[in-house]
Amino acid sequence: MKDLLALDFGVGKELQLVEETLKESVQSDNATLTEIAMHVIGAGGKRIRPAICILSYNAVGGSSGGIGSAIDAAVAVELIHSATLIHDDITDEGEKRRGRVTAYRKYGVHNALVAGDFMFVQGFKYGRFLSPEAIRIAAEAYERLAEGEMLQEQWKNNSSIPTDEYIRIVNGKTASVFSASAQLGAFHGGGTDEEIELIGEYGTDVGIAFQIVDDVLDIISDENTLGKSVGNDIREGNMTLPLIFAMHNGVDKKLLESVISRKKKTKPMIENAIDMIRHSGCINESMRVAEGYVRKAVANAKKLTFSPYREELIQLPDSVLERTR
Amino acid sequence: MKDLLALDFGVGKELQLVEETLKESVQSDNATLTEIAMHVIGAGGKRIRPAICILSYNAVGGSSGGIGSAIDAAVAVELIHSATLIHDDITDEGEKRRGRVTAYRKYGVHNALVAGDFMFVQGFKYGRFLSPEAIRIAAEAYERLAEGEMLQEQWKNNSSIPTDEYIRIVNGKTASVFSASAQLGAFHGGGTDEEIELIGEYGTDVGIAFQIVDDVLDIISDENTLGKSVGNDIREGNMTLPLIFAMHNGVDKKLLESVISRKKKTKPMIENAIDMIRHSGCINESMRVAEGYVRKAVANAKKLTFSPYREELIQLPDSVLERTR
Repeated sequence: MKDLLALDFGVGKELQLVEETLKESVQSDNATLTEIAMHVIGAGGKRIRPAICILSYNAVGGSSGGIGSAIDAAVAVELIHSATLIHDDITDEGEKRRGRVTAYRKYGVHNALVAGDFMFVQGFKYGRFLSPEAIRIAAEAYERLAEGEMLQEQWKNNSSIPTDEYIRIVNGKTASVFSASAQLGAFHGGGTDEEIELIGEYGTDVGIAFQIVDDVLDIISDENTLGKSVGNDIREGNMTLPLIFAMHNGVDKKLLESVISRKKKTKPMIENAIDMIRHSGCINESMRVAEGYVRKAVANAKKLTFSPYREELIQLPDSVLERTR
Repeated sequence: MKDLLALDFGVGKELQLVEETLKESVQSDNATLTEIAMHVIGAGGKRIRPAICILSYNAVGGSSGGIGSAIDAAVAVELIHSATLIHDDITDEGEKRRGRVTAYRKYGVHNALVAGDFMFVQGFKYGRFLSPEAIRIAAEAYERLAEGEMLQEQWKNNSSIPTDEYIRIVNGKTASVFSASAQLGAFHGGGTDEEIELIGEYGTDVGIAFQIVDDVLDIISDENTLGKSVGNDIREGNMTLPLIFAMHNGVDKKLLESVISRKKKTKPMIENAIDMIRHSGCINESMRVAEGYVRKAVANAKKLTFSPYREELIQLPDSVLERTR
């Protein structure tokens, strides 16, 4: 298993700059505001969205606009992503995130909510030197993210969700931002319209695979490895792919459904459900779907002109598949 | 008493365009997302921030950049303002807003939170044609807003707050955005650096007066007139100006303090506190402070070159003082 956190995809220097700019971006006259933002940013995410942005920039030649714009875009995307994590944890009542107690638990709902808003705004502040087209790409991705979140909420605790509706949710809540990161990089790297579209599709497929692995880890991992509590999706009633498969084909599907459809689930119920899904064969089935998206992403990456960065883009989806956190 | 909602400050046509663009800006593939946004936007705010933006644009000559930029800026500011209202109501547990049940009460915390984030992002999407300098002005205002919100939280239920600390909170949470609205207008209208600074100060002073009147209305108004519940600040433990004055000078200051310092306040306690403040003479004292800021704003507006728009900027602060909601 690969640790995504240990990978720099050949763009370590640029990611270091992203890291420094991220820290700078959340400085504020209010110490608590900076502390909350750093609580999340400083815990070290995987930075896979910034990595995809920088790689995409370089893979299309990195010619126009300068690396500065790509770094600003990467910072903007990561800031807004981190803001949504803080807000997600409030509504999902998450206990841990990136190995730390969640922001709202440590600082209260009010302060966590405001800090998330602050990071949203800082994201756009750091993106202000981007062209209107780039800002549109970023804003539309987060618009789709919100739509995905709403759709997920509409299907909560509802075991009759069709698989294509699940993919629509994932496309919105996760893949949209992966796709935007890739497109922003390619756009600032001076890519052609065809390259930007191709690399956007690549981002979408990597994002879907990433989310499916996330769904799987919520079932098969443990809190120490994952840095956040497992079984969250079950508790929250989010219809994840392993769960959908288990409810369609699993041995215990009736029993599982009776747990899933409840609004309030006890800890033993959740543990029971996890156990049923683990032994349903649906983990492998889900991973096969993720592999399909990874293969599609790799095939698209191979259509780009050869460069060491293209090779990294080809490698990256496999590390998403092999990630343990 | 004037009804701010009935005033168009001589820029009715431009405000109509702001209104149409606002509605357009929250269209989404997800019907619920648009519904929540429209629940707040469509309830008709006072649109005083957009009005200040458009008036400031015209007052400096309205020469460069075009009215389109000023309208985009006004839409961005109003969208982000509306987003913060939705988020505020979640943490303050507000029951009514603009005469309607609050968004989180009607649509749940998750959906209201996501809709607020969506509106934040749409704000910047509609501001994407603004120059980096304009985006910086808007982003820094919302940064100061977040700082003000944090500071307010730090002083919650704490009756020892000094008046200048109260002004710092108001400067952040309210005046920053009024000031940015004015500056964005003047900037896009091609104002000189001096004009932009002057008009920014004007916005700050109007914003502080606006907030003090807000504080007063929370004590002396009623739910039907105000469109939101009264006594909110007392219940939430927010240190407002009438309350601070009453605790410093009021007859019942010890009794009042004993209510204020409680984290949980019962309805009779809140009604009692409102009654004590109403009869403390501190309402008039607060309004005199607000009048001071209004006079300062008017004096600054008079320094601008004569135009019908300047005359509207001179009139506007008085209507803030006389507003009933």
